[in-house]
Amino acid sequence: MSGFCGLNIKLGIYGESHGKSIGILLDGLPPGLALDLEKITLEMGRRAPGKNILSTARKETDAFEIQSGFFNGYTTGTPLCAVIKNSDQHSKDYSILADKMRPGHADYAGYVRYQGFNDYRGGGQFSGRLTAPLVFAGAIAKQALAQYGIVIGAHILSIADLQEAGFSPMGVADDLLADIAAKSFPVADDVIGQKMQERIVAAKAELNSVGGVIETIVQHMPAGIGAPYFDSLESRLSQALFSVPAVKAVEFGDGFALTAKTGAETNDELHYVDGRVVGYTNHNGGITGGITNGMPVLFRVGIKPTPSISREQRTVSLKEKQDTTLTIVGRHDPCIVQRAVPVIEAVTAWTMWDLLIEAKKWER
Amino acid sequence: MSGFCGLNIKLGIYGESHGKSIGILLDGLPPGLALDLEKITLEMGRRAPGKNILSTARKETDAFEIQSGFFNGYTTGTPLCAVIKNSDQHSKDYSILADKMRPGHADYAGYVRYQGFNDYRGGGQFSGRLTAPLVFAGAIAKQALAQYGIVIGAHILSIADLQEAGFSPMGVADDLLADIAAKSFPVADDVIGQKMQERIVAAKAELNSVGGVIETIVQHMPAGIGAPYFDSLESRLSQALFSVPAVKAVEFGDGFALTAKTGAETNDELHYVDGRVVGYTNHNGGITGGITNGMPVLFRVGIKPTPSISREQRTVSLKEKQDTTLTIVGRHDPCIVQRAVPVIEAVTAWTMWDLLIEAKKWER
Amino acid sequence: MSGFCGLNIKLGIYGESHGKSIGILLDGLPPGLALDLEKITLEMGRRAPGKNILSTARKETDAFEIQSGFFNGYTTGTPLCAVIKNSDQHSKDYSILADKMRPGHADYAGYVRYQGFNDYRGGGQFSGRLTAPLVFAGAIAKQALAQYGIVIGAHILSIADLQEAGFSPMGVADDLLADIAAKSFPVADDVIGQKMQERIVAAKAELNSVGGVIETIVQHMPAGIGAPYFDSLESRLSQALFSVPAVKAVEFGDGFALTAKTGAETNDELHYVDGRVVGYTNHNGGITGGITNGMPVLFRVGIKPTPSISREQRTVSLKEKQDTTLTIVGRHDPCIVQRAVPVIEAVTAWTMWDLLIEAKKWER
Amino acid sequence: MSGFCGLNIKLGIYGESHGKSIGILLDGLPPGLALDLEKITLEMGRRAPGKNILSTARKETDAFEIQSGFFNGYTTGTPLCAVIKNSDQHSKDYSILADKMRPGHADYAGYVRYQGFNDYRGGGQFSGRLTAPLVFAGAIAKQALAQYGIVIGAHILSIADLQEAGFSPMGVADDLLADIAAKSFPVADDVIGQKMQERIVAAKAELNSVGGVIETIVQHMPAGIGAPYFDSLESRLSQALFSVPAVKAVEFGDGFALTAKTGAETNDELHYVDGRVVGYTNHNGGITGGITNGMPVLFRVGIKPTPSISREQRTVSLKEKQDTTLTIVGRHDPCIVQRAVPVIEAVTAWTMWDLLIEAKKWER
Repeated sequence: MSGFCGLNIKLGIYGESHGKSIGILLDGLPPGLALDLEKITLEMGRRAPGKNILSTARKETDAFEIQSGFFNGYTTGTPLCAVIKNSDQHSKDYSILADKMRPGHADYAGYVRYQGFNDYRGGGQFSGRLTAPLVFAGAIAKQALAQYGIVIGAHILSIADLQEAGFSPMGVADDLLADIAAKSFPVADDVIGQKMQERIVAAKAELNSVGGVIETIVQHMPAGIGAPYFDSLESRLSQALFSVPAVKAVEFGDGFALTAKTGAETNDELHYVDGRVVGYTNHNGGITGGITNGMPVLFRVGIKPTPSISREQRTVSLKEKQDTTLTIVGRHDPCIVQRAVPVIEAVTAWTMWDLLIEAKKWER
Repeated sequence: MSGFCGLNIKLGIYGESHGKSIGILLDGLPPGLALDLEKITLEMGRRAPGKNILSTARKETDAFEIQSGFFNGYTTGTPLCAVIKNSDQHSKDYSILADKMRPGHADYAGYVRYQGFNDYRGGGQFSGRLTAPLVFAGAIAKQALAQYGIVIGAHILSIADLQEAGFSPMGVADDLLADIAAKSFPVADDVIGQKMQERIVAAKAELNSVGGVIETIVQHMPAGIGAPYFDSLESRLSQALFSVPAVKAVEFGDGFALTAKTGAETNDELHYVDGRVVGYTNHNGGITGGITNGMPVLFRVGIKPTPSISREQRTVSLKEKQDTTLTIVGRHDPCIVQRAVPVIEAVTAWTMWDLLIEAKKWER
Repeated sequence: MSGFCGLNIKLGIYGESHGKSIGILLDGLPPGLALDLEKITLEMGRRAPGKNILSTARKETDAFEIQSGFFNGYTTGTPLCAVIKNSDQHSKDYSILADKMRPGHADYAGYVRYQGFNDYRGGGQFSGRLTAPLVFAGAIAKQALAQYGIVIGAHILSIADLQEAGFSPMGVADDLLADIAAKSFPVADDVIGQKMQERIVAAKAELNSVGGVIETIVQHMPAGIGAPYFDSLESRLSQALFSVPAVKAVEFGDGFALTAKTGAETNDELHYVDGRVVGYTNHNGGITGGITNGMPVLFRVGIKPTPSISREQRTVSLKEKQDTTLTIVGRHDPCIVQRAVPVIEAVTAWTMWDLLIEAKKWER
Repeated sequence: MSGFCGLNIKLGIYGESHGKSIGILLDGLPPGLALDLEKITLEMGRRAPGKNILSTARKETDAFEIQSGFFNGYTTGTPLCAVIKNSDQHSKDYSILADKMRPGHADYAGYVRYQGFNDYRGGGQFSGRLTAPLVFAGAIAKQALAQYGIVIGAHILSIADLQEAGFSPMGVADDLLADIAAKSFPVADDVIGQKMQERIVAAKAELNSVGGVIETIVQHMPAGIGAPYFDSLESRLSQALFSVPAVKAVEFGDGFALTAKTGAETNDELHYVDGRVVGYTNHNGGITGGITNGMPVLFRVGIKPTPSISREQRTVSLKEKQDTTLTIVGRHDPCIVQRAVPVIEAVTAWTMWDLLIEAKKWER
């Protein structure tokens, strides 16, 4: 099982890198949500490859075609399926990938899991390309969240050891988030951003790759969203976040840093501001007991360096059952952090929306 | 919704700190699994409070009573319900907790989520006491995993800024894990462990609390368990891990540290050892593409300092709709990391078991 | 898997006839629903055995004890667990049931399904006793539905070949439904009801058993509840109805009789009455396209004769792997139709409630 | 919610009658299942319209295009998406369907459910055309079941008041089922079948429609498949069967007829035959306690007359909020029973497969 997520809005993705198409099926959408397709296209464009020197040369327009569930500009409330055709496929021979397992990739794990039947071309279903439908779903969720006044934004907090300042856990200007989102390299500080990009280019020149950290903030979230235990906001969000390939770490609020502090330092004391209960601080990242407490939801994810590097690496040949080496050729990203930013925002958006709907059930 | 988890073995927990009982309903268990109730009791005992100076003085035997699904020493395959009675409840007046929100706790978030109807006595369903049924489920899962030869162990990696050496990602001796599990303060290095305990005692003396990091290893896991995307092993595990109260961070393999390294450094190159494909290294924590690759599964969780501290703190009175202060009295743990160790092992065990069953469907 | 049902309110039941207790876990309840425990007890009493000559002599008070999720008279919104202790168990030897399979019962199917590990005493989890927790859940659902003005009622339409008049598909007086529900033998026409009871008594005297048909009506249901395909109202209701032991047939509206008529006869033409769209007729039982259309929801279920009869029957001995005969001794019902009436109402009530909540998500 | 079904193989369908395409997403398929696409096409052809005078003149090739999850002739084990393009759409004005509600159709119920946003053209998602993806899924399931030796067959038991003999509940020749399946009008007795077809033609001539009953048998099912209560075989099957538009009744074994008989008549006594436990009779339709007992699984579904008839009918105008009349013009089936046969077989096939996989989890 790998395809369905969500308590109220179920989404399933499908596709392999070199199949006819990839796509998504969304079930449980409300009827009557006006969809601005331009905005969806814009979000898709933020993730799409081939834009600059930092990413793979593979050109995919990522043009989506809605098949169902959308009529006269509005969601109908029936299952919405969107198809994204695979266009720019190299017809080269990929059979080496069925034999020699790329280190750091899912090749070997996938070979065992799928008993050797998986589509190995271009990484098959493990391809980062499968994040395109996630962004599609997120773009719809963002439009729904906008009706609640909720805004989601993310930035590249670090690339390798280069780091810019984190968002204030007390919240930032919505405009700042919009500004960052509009950049092809989404950072707040372009000077540091420039250095980060140079680091990526340098890694590529060295036939190497780098990773980084993405920080996300969800602003204007009402309190009371989530639940303790299995459907805690952290549980639901982390399930979605770890669905994004290359994510290896997730922390909420001060995260691991909390463990080196004391309760007296990190308990977010409370007071009334304009009739609302708010914290003096927000070390908990807006979530206590698995439920939003009205403060901004803040978290960071760690993205590992792209495993596709052009150096010779030691690996195994499954056919010959012996050790060998492999030099991966072809198009790949020396860093996927910048392209992962809209994906992280997307999965955050539909998780939040999904849980907001959960709360709607009990409105009086 | 907050109660059900698992793809194949569904488990639901119920209960509040001061209700009649807490408990668990397990559905989808295989018939014919022999259960050693002594071992379950032993696991429950590892988590139970009141054992030493480090934890709350509340004494609960945590004795479980199986109501169904167990007959003549074996699981029947029908839903198994276990009830743990609440015995040591102070009959004092808890109504202050319905008014003054404890900082760092779920009080305010829960108040909004449950529209003021939740049982506030002793934290209600947010009480760490609800982890007892999780341990019960984990104790069953461990017995099932033992049949596969799979061993799960965890240790306290750090308390505040005191840290012991991490497990080798290439695996450790199973005996070491058993040794650690047998300790009331589960560390590998008792000298550092002693210092950690002193730090906890000191925090208590200062009416303060501390947190820490727990590291877990799953050994002898077969490759091929998990899936990409929503049911990735990281996704399923993190959902379960963040279900444990006070967990605020999860990282797999090198986790956040991966983001400061390059692909050339962190790609786990492969070779054959005794006919098995293994990595030269294990920076990915035994998981690539969301699927086990045959290396030990390794991850760390960050536990925040216990929010219950006996100092006066600033907070709000919901009744009077104004700022106030609160000094929490009563029994509470200055640190819950040591008691969280068996809980983390438990949720790991049943997640692993759940996904092993998933793989069993496709056996030929 | 056998234990969880519902899209929004998940309910799981557990227990065996001779275990410590049976019970139910309800997750997803709204916070703040006032529960009248007297009314729940009343519903439980409608199903309880030992009331008269028609049913088994086993005496069970079916007293429920709520363990969680209920505080100060209201649901909290957290999982609600209710336990019903098993009190009146004969300590006789049941081991014959592990060997000789009772015809018409689940014994042999259950033996294979549970690989011989199931609790065979008194039918184990297949016991009709497990319908008590279903009635508990239904009693809560009825109180929730009452807030919407929705009323559910059922009657015994037939016992063996004795039949009373069916409900008008256009709706009946709510009072009539209340009157029927108050009877120990729930029929509209007591003259026919008397004959039915005599037939049951006669069957018992002949060491035989009889079945019958229950008709249910749901009145004042709003239009627009349900969905096409897998979550159609018919799909959801039939899943719940066939969960009730001994139900072997379900039909909505005119049901099978529709197949002998023409479209011109059975299309429910529409008109406005007091500003509401209603049908001139209701051959479709209030459901078109899987969705309520505003007319009363009407359906019938067929209940097979109780398989427990005291005659000698041919069967197999699993131990000796040969044919044998079996004469079942002990307490059993010559007819369970009258006791199934509140159970059918109950599963109807929580299915309806579950789907009403589904609709609530999209309210504007 | 309307799109996902299954415990292990989740399937979701999408599409509207006049959208770009309809289709299906199948998740949880095993890797390595060889798919014979010809056989799938053959099954699709059994359902496809436009074949003869009995069905709608709409011509759809129902050609499916697999997008993913299928590689080199085998399933990969990843989500399999199949798209069926909508080709033969009349470009006429359908807006009358947004105003005047067709009696017997889902128009009004759907209007309320989807708050007026649903695609009303050609019935939108309520169109019988959506059964094409169900047949696709069933065609895959049949190939999987063939590996277990399981055979599914159905026939038209009745059209209006014309009925042929039912299948023997003790089983029929597999060849007979294959013969019936190969017919464009699937009955065992072609003489009666001819009369049934004449009745359908006559109904069409009278601008009317007829319904009928389909009987299905599943042969060579192992015992032990299913569970009591919510996942009983009857519950799972009926959920799937009522997903098929126009199905209004389902009965297993003797069904409603059981209610007029006694336990002594209907208890299926047991004996050994060739070392297997079998019944002397099969009044229970191969299912006891919700679980297969090794006898053929037998059930019947009642299909209502097609609501689309060309006579003038009384209905409402939503726009003008007043009573009116409507004469439906266009292509429609005077009877859909014959086309529903492969659909019923299909949903039966994947329900059976889904539950067989459930049982596989516990194999030793």
